[in-house]
Formats: sequence, structure tokens, C-alpha cells
Amino acid sequence: MAVVNSELRDFWAVVPAGGVGTRLWPMSRSERPKFLLDIAGTGRSLLQSAWDRLTPLCGDRFMLVTGVAHEKSVRQQLPKLSSDNLLIEPAPRDSMAAIGLAAAVLEERNPGLVLGSFPADHVIPEVGDLHECIRQGYAAARTGLLALVGLEPSRPTSALGYVLMGKELGIAGAPLVRSVETFVEKPPAEHARRFVSAGGYVWNAGMWIAQAGTLMGLLADARPRLASDLRAIARDPKCMPEVWESIERTTIDHAIAEPLAGTSKICIVPGRFEWEDIGDFGALNAYFRRREPSVRMHSVSGRGRVVDLDSTGLAVGATGRVIAVLGLDGVVVVDTEDALLVMSEEYAQRLKDMYPTIVEHNPEVG
Amino acid sequence: MAVVNSELRDFWAVVPAGGVGTRLWPMSRSERPKFLLDIAGTGRSLLQSAWDRLTPLCGDRFMLVTGVAHEKSVRQQLPKLSSDNLLIEPAPRDSMAAIGLAAAVLEERNPGLVLGSFPADHVIPEVGDLHECIRQGYAAARTGLLALVGLEPSRPTSALGYVLMGKELGIAGAPLVRSVETFVEKPPAEHARRFVSAGGYVWNAGMWIAQAGTLMGLLADARPRLASDLRAIARDPKCMPEVWESIERTTIDHAIAEPLAGTSKICIVPGRFEWEDIGDFGALNAYFRRREPSVRMHSVSGRGRVVDLDSTGLAVGATGRVIAVLGLDGVVVVDTEDALLVMSEEYAQRLKDMYPTIVEHNPEVG
Repeated sequence: MAVVNSELRDFWAVVPAGGVGTRLWPMSRSERPKFLLDIAGTGRSLLQSAWDRLTPLCGDRFMLVTGVAHEKSVRQQLPKLSSDNLLIEPAPRDSMAAIGLAAAVLEERNPGLVLGSFPADHVIPEVGDLHECIRQGYAAARTGLLALVGLEPSRPTSALGYVLMGKELGIAGAPLVRSVETFVEKPPAEHARRFVSAGGYVWNAGMWIAQAGTLMGLLADARPRLASDLRAIARDPKCMPEVWESIERTTIDHAIAEPLAGTSKICIVPGRFEWEDIGDFGALNAYFRRREPSVRMHSVSGRGRVVDLDSTGLAVGATGRVIAVLGLDGVVVVDTEDALLVMSEEYAQRLKDMYPTIVEHNPEVG
Repeated sequence: MAVVNSELRDFWAVVPAGGVGTRLWPMSRSERPKFLLDIAGTGRSLLQSAWDRLTPLCGDRFMLVTGVAHEKSVRQQLPKLSSDNLLIEPAPRDSMAAIGLAAAVLEERNPGLVLGSFPADHVIPEVGDLHECIRQGYAAARTGLLALVGLEPSRPTSALGYVLMGKELGIAGAPLVRSVETFVEKPPAEHARRFVSAGGYVWNAGMWIAQAGTLMGLLADARPRLASDLRAIARDPKCMPEVWESIERTTIDHAIAEPLAGTSKICIVPGRFEWEDIGDFGALNAYFRRREPSVRMHSVSGRGRVVDLDSTGLAVGATGRVIAVLGLDGVVVVDTEDALLVMSEEYAQRLKDMYPTIVEHNPEVG
């Protein structure tokens, strides 16, 4: 693909940054969630990495939606973010309210502005092909479509949602763009294997591109009350505390996208760039395993302090202390100042269920 | 057995306290070896526990032999220990030199004094039957014998030496005492199983009782140079640095006891008390498992801070931090201020081989 490294006119990057990431405890905490952490060991937090890969396209048109508890950290990590473009949620209300708030604010400024919404906590080591996908999604959005970036699956996983693509739409400047046949929620392993071998399926990467007016129009059709609440806040931010309290909790997939499958209002841009939604330590371990297959025991920081024998897995050393690991396969060790996790990789998903028990007895480490 | 809780006349408890215990790293360190630690979670170090169980029999006749690096810690842990009875080795020279030094010093005071030498790092939860064994060993020693306390084996282990007992000797006040047929070094598992099922074998618990003159006489027969070196130091402690430098390194088993098997100069007192020589984390884990079979995840300290799910093993929390363990069987977690060990119990013995690699890169945690 030809990659032109220039800003897209009237293009806004919107980044909803929320969630605790209890499946990454004790690395992530309620006060220091996943998007504020450098979990991939790049030297930049996931949020900062999102800034780094989006600002070449959006310039200073970067809008962040985050919780009141994280405003200070976000400002520290992104000193160039304008206060006008930092939207603070009084409480978390799921993705539709967060993205819709940004869309309503941009619509108020100009309904023709194009917004691309991107999760704050993804890992994308190379941005070239992502940029090309965004450019094509932008071109499709310019024609009035809601565009979704999808990823060609590199492995059959049950941890992600899939999208079955339809025909090519032949949009000028967007040759990859196709129609959307169906959304498939996180499928059983057997189905995931079939999707990968059959072809035509892509992972739903949670990246949405549309004109602000398009998105708000679709929301007004699907959830009129939610759209009018968000537009009321956009017109008069002072009403936010009252309106937000009872605002509807739903996801953009559920509220807008899934009902549009099979229609001409939604499209997908299939991409091939490396992309990781690192939701738990199993995924983080797998990420390092793919990047450095010859390394048996991976470590996120303080590599020189990990000494291992006959072990495979992941050691996260946040304290600088010496970590010796002997005779354990698929082990996850996360060493922080006040809490230590030692876990079989197979329990990566179950950490979330264990989290309430841990913090019940030790609230200070939550 | 009748237990009479009174001191034994002219009886001296001798405790050689040395070794680093690298198989218990990072709990034990070169500056803070196993005998200075409360590894059994009793609230007293192993050395203090030795003091507690021996002083009812020896009163203030407690003699400690330790290395120069540990003098300060030993004095802190045993404030009632008399300086006259604290012998400092300039460098470690194995058990025969350590026990022999105490024997030579006591012989110089009075050859008829009876000494019982007991390792500093054993765990003996109940002392009643130990005291009875010592009383009977003392009675045998009074007749000029070298007595060894043995333990009826409760399981077939390859980690200990065994002694095949001979006939009862009919010594007054020592009805349990028998002759020694053979010493067997740490045997293969198959032999150990045979020893346990056959009966007549006991574990060599490394506890020796003899008159000071008897022991020095046996040493003078077996290793004349070593005996004369030790007697020279006992007569004139000022010559110690020079003499000690080149003193012979050997064990009391090898130098004296094994050659006496089958003779009338040595005897054994078989005991049945609970006794543990906790040499590594596998043994420590087994110790807790035997004491609390219903507990799956044992912890030595800070129990309330360990949260576990579907795990078995041992967590040593020396820092007070929260330790969460998920989905690991037979795991050993040792959390200290500057070093963390995460290990399969099956690697307990191999930690010793790994230790040099760990400290090569991180000398401060050695």
C-alpha cells in the first residue's frame, strides 16, 4: 500500500480511555489502569503510543474521553493535549456514551468533521498499514458511511469478535472497503478455526470512523434518548452531571453497528497490520512469544534481574528486585511494590474473578 | 517414657552453627544463614529453638561454635550465652573441626565433662522424647561410649543417612541403647524403602554424646594431627588463627564414627520424636504438609496476606506484601525485600546449583 504521511483534513482522533483492567492486576490498578501503563515494554504507555500513532493523521485534533479519576495522569502523560479536547466522564458508562459524547461535541462544532474512534489500550507495533486503513475508512466516512477497521485473523481465537465481510464497495480512494454481512460475538474455538480457514472473516478491532453528524444520526435512529442526552451535554456541558447519572449504558457494537449489518450504511476496511488487544497476562505472554520466539522466559522490565532455569512464561519486574524462576512452565510473575502475583498462564482469564477476593482483604492494592 | 525435667550433671550442650543454606535462598543469605531464621514459623529462630530445648538439660553449660561473620547475630539472638562458651571459627572447616574444638576446650577444663553436640538448624516440635534420648545417651557416655541419637524413620527418604542397629547393650539407665552395625550413606530410594520395611534401621540425626576425653581420645586415634591441633588451640587460643588456617576438613561421621561401626566403642539411642532437618524448600513444604494436611497453600509468615486459588505449595512472605497465587501445584514462593524466588517444589535441590548464577549477576542478594 502507498502510505502518505500527511494529516487528514477535518479528521479527529477520538480515544475513549477507561476500564480498570483487573485481569492485568497487580500491574494495573484502579488508579493506574492499563492504558496508563507501558505493558508492552516500549518506553511509552499504551495511551501515549495511541497518541504517537494517531497524531501523524490528526495533528492536534486529538480528543480524549476518560474518567475523572484519571484526568491528572492523562494530562501528565499527554502534555500537548488541549483542555478543550479532554472530555471527563463523571462515571464510566460504556463505549457508546463515551464515543457518542465525543461525536456530539464534534457535531456541535461541525457535523461534517470525521471522527475515528480508537481504543486507548491496543498495541500496534507498526503503524504504516493502520494509517492506510484509516485513510480508506476516512474516504468511506466522507461518503456518509460508518466504517469499521477489521483485522485479518492470524490465528483462531475465541477472545475476539469476528465480522463476515461482503462485496467490495468500489469507493474512490478506498479500494479495500467492503460491506458487512454479519457480526459474530466471541465464537467457540471450533467456529473460530472455521472462520480463519474459510477466509472472508476479520476481527472486530473496535476502531470506528464516521462523520460526527453520521454517527449521531445513526444513534438518534437507534437510541433517540441517548442521542438527545449526549447532544444536550454537547450544547451545555453544565448539565453533564445530572444527565450523565442516568445515561444509557450500551456498547457502540450493540447500539448501532450490529443492527446495521447487511445494510448499505456500514462498511469494513480489512487490515493486515500487527495488532494486539492485550486483555490479560496470557495475551501479554503470547504477544512476547510471537515477537521473540526464541526467548523462553520473557520479562517486561528489569530484564537483567530475572534469572531463570527450565522455565517459560512472563516476569514483570516493577521493583528492580532479583526474580529467580525455576522449573515452571507457562508461569506469570508480576512483582510490584505492594503486591505480587504468581499464576499459571492458564488462569489468566480467572484472575478477574479472583480480583474481588484479593481486594476485599487488601483494599489498598486494588 | 518417664521424663524428668532436670539438668544433667556436667552435661554440656554443644551447637555447631555454620553453613549458608543456599538451598533456602533467598530466605537464607550468607550473612543471615538458616540457623538464624525462623523458618518453621514458631516465632524463634532455629538456633533459639535449639537453645530452648537444650537448656532444660544443660542449664548455662551451652557452648556455641560459629563463624566470625555470625558472632554479632548470635549474641543478639542468645543474650544469655556466656562469652566463655562462644567459640568463633575464623573460617568454616566442617563438622569434625567444629565439634572437636568444643570437645578440646571442654577436655581442657575437665576430661570427664559430657558433651552432646546438636546441629543448630533442626526442627523438633516436641522435646520430651528427645530429652529422654539425651538422658540415655548421657548414661552411655558416662560408661565411656560415643553415643549417637537415631530416629526411627517415618518415611523412606534418600535425603538422610541410615544406621543399622545391633543388639541391646543393657546399660544401666539406658535401656534403649544398642550397638551400631553399619552406617549407610544417603541410600537410593529402593534401599531406603527396604530399610524402612525391614526395621532395625534409624536415621542418623547428627546428634553425638560423649565425654570430652572420650571424644578427643577417639579423634587422637583416628586423626592424630587434627586432635593435636585442636588441643593446641584449647590450651592457647592465641594460636588459633595460624593453626586453623590449615586444619583438616572432615566430618565426625567420616573421621570417627563410621570406622567404629561394629565395635564396642560406639552405640546408638533410637528415638521416636518428630524431627526435621529442613535442608531445602521441598523439605519445608513437606514439614508444613505433615503438620497441617488440610491446608493446601502453606505460608510461613504474613499468612493473612496470601490469597490463593487452585494452588498447593508454600509461600514465604517476608515483606508483608500481598501474594496472590493462582493455578499452580507444588509451587514455592519466597518474597523478600530484594529478591523473589518462584520455583517448582521439584527444583528444591537444584536451587543450590542455580545459586552461583544468581549471585554472579546480583552479588548483593547472595
